[in-house]
Amino acid sequence: MPERKPQANYLFRHRLHEIIFEADTPAGKLFDVVLIFSIVLSVIVVMLDSVAELNIQYGQFFLVLEWFFTIIFTVEYALRLSCIGRPSKYATSFYGIVDLLSILPSYVSLLLPSGKYFLVIRILRLLRVFRVLKLVQYVGESNYLQRALWASRRKISVFLLSVLLMMIIFGSVMYIVEGAENGFTSIPRSIYWAIVTMTTVGYGDISPQTSLGQAIASLVMILGYGIIAIPTGIVTAELTFKKNISTQVCPECSAEGHDVNAKHCKFCGAELHPEKI
Amino acid sequence: MPERKPQANYLFRHRLHEIIFEADTPAGKLFDVVLIFSIVLSVIVVMLDSVAELNIQYGQFFLVLEWFFTIIFTVEYALRLSCIGRPSKYATSFYGIVDLLSILPSYVSLLLPSGKYFLVIRILRLLRVFRVLKLVQYVGESNYLQRALWASRRKISVFLLSVLLMMIIFGSVMYIVEGAENGFTSIPRSIYWAIVTMTTVGYGDISPQTSLGQAIASLVMILGYGIIAIPTGIVTAELTFKKNISTQVCPECSAEGHDVNAKHCKFCGAELHPEKI
Amino acid sequence: MPERKPQANYLFRHRLHEIIFEADTPAGKLFDVVLIFSIVLSVIVVMLDSVAELNIQYGQFFLVLEWFFTIIFTVEYALRLSCIGRPSKYATSFYGIVDLLSILPSYVSLLLPSGKYFLVIRILRLLRVFRVLKLVQYVGESNYLQRALWASRRKISVFLLSVLLMMIIFGSVMYIVEGAENGFTSIPRSIYWAIVTMTTVGYGDISPQTSLGQAIASLVMILGYGIIAIPTGIVTAELTFKKNISTQVCPECSAEGHDVNAKHCKFCGAELHPEKI
Amino acid sequence: MPERKPQANYLFRHRLHEIIFEADTPAGKLFDVVLIFSIVLSVIVVMLDSVAELNIQYGQFFLVLEWFFTIIFTVEYALRLSCIGRPSKYATSFYGIVDLLSILPSYVSLLLPSGKYFLVIRILRLLRVFRVLKLVQYVGESNYLQRALWASRRKISVFLLSVLLMMIIFGSVMYIVEGAENGFTSIPRSIYWAIVTMTTVGYGDISPQTSLGQAIASLVMILGYGIIAIPTGIVTAELTFKKNISTQVCPECSAEGHDVNAKHCKFCGAELHPEKI
Repeated sequence: MPERKPQANYLFRHRLHEIIFEADTPAGKLFDVVLIFSIVLSVIVVMLDSVAELNIQYGQFFLVLEWFFTIIFTVEYALRLSCIGRPSKYATSFYGIVDLLSILPSYVSLLLPSGKYFLVIRILRLLRVFRVLKLVQYVGESNYLQRALWASRRKISVFLLSVLLMMIIFGSVMYIVEGAENGFTSIPRSIYWAIVTMTTVGYGDISPQTSLGQAIASLVMILGYGIIAIPTGIVTAELTFKKNISTQVCPECSAEGHDVNAKHCKFCGAELHPEKI
Repeated sequence: MPERKPQANYLFRHRLHEIIFEADTPAGKLFDVVLIFSIVLSVIVVMLDSVAELNIQYGQFFLVLEWFFTIIFTVEYALRLSCIGRPSKYATSFYGIVDLLSILPSYVSLLLPSGKYFLVIRILRLLRVFRVLKLVQYVGESNYLQRALWASRRKISVFLLSVLLMMIIFGSVMYIVEGAENGFTSIPRSIYWAIVTMTTVGYGDISPQTSLGQAIASLVMILGYGIIAIPTGIVTAELTFKKNISTQVCPECSAEGHDVNAKHCKFCGAELHPEKI
Repeated sequence: MPERKPQANYLFRHRLHEIIFEADTPAGKLFDVVLIFSIVLSVIVVMLDSVAELNIQYGQFFLVLEWFFTIIFTVEYALRLSCIGRPSKYATSFYGIVDLLSILPSYVSLLLPSGKYFLVIRILRLLRVFRVLKLVQYVGESNYLQRALWASRRKISVFLLSVLLMMIIFGSVMYIVEGAENGFTSIPRSIYWAIVTMTTVGYGDISPQTSLGQAIASLVMILGYGIIAIPTGIVTAELTFKKNISTQVCPECSAEGHDVNAKHCKFCGAELHPEKI
Repeated sequence: MPERKPQANYLFRHRLHEIIFEADTPAGKLFDVVLIFSIVLSVIVVMLDSVAELNIQYGQFFLVLEWFFTIIFTVEYALRLSCIGRPSKYATSFYGIVDLLSILPSYVSLLLPSGKYFLVIRILRLLRVFRVLKLVQYVGESNYLQRALWASRRKISVFLLSVLLMMIIFGSVMYIVEGAENGFTSIPRSIYWAIVTMTTVGYGDISPQTSLGQAIASLVMILGYGIIAIPTGIVTAELTFKKNISTQVCPECSAEGHDVNAKHCKFCGAELHPEKI
């Protein structure tokens, strides 16, 4: 029966697609869990391999593991390409590129001398964890946060621009006040100091020595300490606002902005269908 | 009258239970206060004993005190076991194990050479303070905070996962940019640097030396400084929301979610019984 | 006319009281401004005198200034005592003691060799600034903040207790993990490290050296970084709540908790007298 | 036609004014974009020129670029003066002075030996970026933030004053507790330490060595860590409040303070014209 083969092939591809791209069947869930474990394990191997002592002792073992994961991810990449409707669209999508990048370094290192620059590319595999999570229950929460941040993007830009300007000006002032002899050797380095100070990180690798410098630094610190209130306030106001206003729409008059626990439209009185928050 | 003895025993056990496990009688309150003092004092003794100079001078005195507290806690543990209905359930509960762990190290040190690992176990006695507090007025506030944190656990997980991913990627990038000669000797150590920087702790034990490294570090700092707004916003929105919505339930239709100052149910109009906040 | 003298004396004392203790007359305002300037200047003199180089050069000049301010404050203290109704009550009040403490060190230093311990007592003069401010427009704002903090004192206590417990336990664990050879010489010192780390201060005078220590430190940092959201959320929820609910009381039914812009009582419909926010 | 010339001149000046001062024509927008790029580029040149190695290699090139930008800004300044109604008012305005200061240093350096003090003046050019932004869409967001900060200025002042007082008192106490031998050489320097600690910057250039000093420092850190909740709460409460209250005014009774989603005036029932947020 050669004519039935395409259909069996189609069914097989459909089933494969469900396992690999969806998470609502037991097999799909298992696939996701195994994949997350593989990704995390392979990243841990890359990390441990970068520790000099471990590399000397277990370098060979790590290499074997790395190839093991590379082959798994290669098979997975091939399966994804084979069972999706438009392979070229997947291959050029964000996650398609991440998937490719997570297997490429191992193959390239066969041809070229393996450089440590491949390490970061291997670490980027971690981004794939987000694709898996995207399929499950965290998508709502993540969207909620993203919408709040997006809604406040302009206020945050104004804040960030003001802060950057302050950092540049204070950095330049300190370059003149303190000078190269106290570690403020150039304006970019002084701006680096201003960022370290204003964000309250405070490494202490560069710190003001003169009285005037310490006075200006004190001002910078108090500013940095206090103005964190502004982005916090912006994001909180947005989240509080979003929290109290439900996303449900009146089925009668299409009005939005009802309280989360309203049962009737506050504008036309039609019954609402409350949702779970 | 041998038949009355069991009853006297029962009454005595009941009274003991009230003193030890409850806090609504004067004796029960006194017991709690004495217990908290003993716990705090015994932990201070453990702490001071770890200071080399004090150990040399007062080591013997501390040992006597330690045994004094051990005996007190042993008697208390025995009493708890004796007066509770199901001793085995208590003994395997969280606080039962903490109670046992707070006396065990002293006895074990008679058999084995006393290691400093017992120290932490002794410090864990402090957890017992929470049991005592649990009985009194702070339980409501604690529950309120726990419920708010629990309600926002998913949003916080999404945030934490994103932050951890950023720390791992920025750490790996810095390992390549700065390299072992500037203190970034391995990826785990570079991730440690990213955590120190992004949480704005900034020890300064590892700090970027190259221009590119300092530029990336600046980005990490500003990110870490700014995104604290997100968990703060999440928790605040939850607490504000919980604050404005009363916990009272309509006596007629059992509806919840009324405003804290509502006098009538917003759904069926029945009178509510406002509570004190 | 000896019989009119007491009355003149009374009037003079009344007028003096108005100038010194009140701020609603021009003379009273001028007195306050002069006083604040004197306090701030005298504190700056104390500060500059503690700088070794300035002390050598201008020590004599600072001494003269110190005595100048001491005499001014002594006269002010005497006037306060003379024009107030119950001098003994003032003398034993908080600000009465602060006023006395701000002049005492200079006189005591005539008898005893002047120790540097007097310095802090002199600095405490600054507290007097608050008395002056108390009289003016900031009292409302200050009360608003104090009420919000007071209302959330229990939640903050629960938070603080949990944080302290975490600091003690993490400090003890690090004492064992890192040990004396890495700077964690005793439990109190390790707890000091935990406080430095968890509050994101991060001096870097003590920092973990072992891998396990750095892993635990990372956990402590992320915890400290994240849980700041909790007190912030508590205080913000309280302030937001207080902000939206007006303090006005219904003149008819004495109900509270109206919206800041409500014109009628939401419970009995009586007209409200909206206030300025 | 000599009589038409003034009008052509007027039209030309009007058109120039539109391009330079407004942003609603394509030419005006292009002018703004080119200007922002020039400003940012010229500031980057100033910064790079301060790096010793780059100055040696590319010093001549940077000098040429600096003069290139100076000439551009000079022409722009002249055009602004020529096309504005009242040149003297522009010249003495904030942005007029910033514009002048951004070209002056280059000309002055022809007469005087170029000092590095001119550097900061050149960096101040960055302030001009804000003028350009002022014309466009960020003005609303910026105003929103400014109004919220202005509304909470008194609460923030009370907070700032209390924090400063704590810093001064704790600094003075530490000067006595730790003393000059541990780096706390004077009260101003100890206050500098208190600021570094309380703002959680924590350079570590000065850190307590005695047990008592570390105990007080722990208190300062926990205070600094916790009280950031207060300004954050103040700003957030203000922003949340402003967010929930719409700026629309009732067309009938001119009442303000309606909810953002209200359709009818809550006071007189007239229909409102909801706006987009």
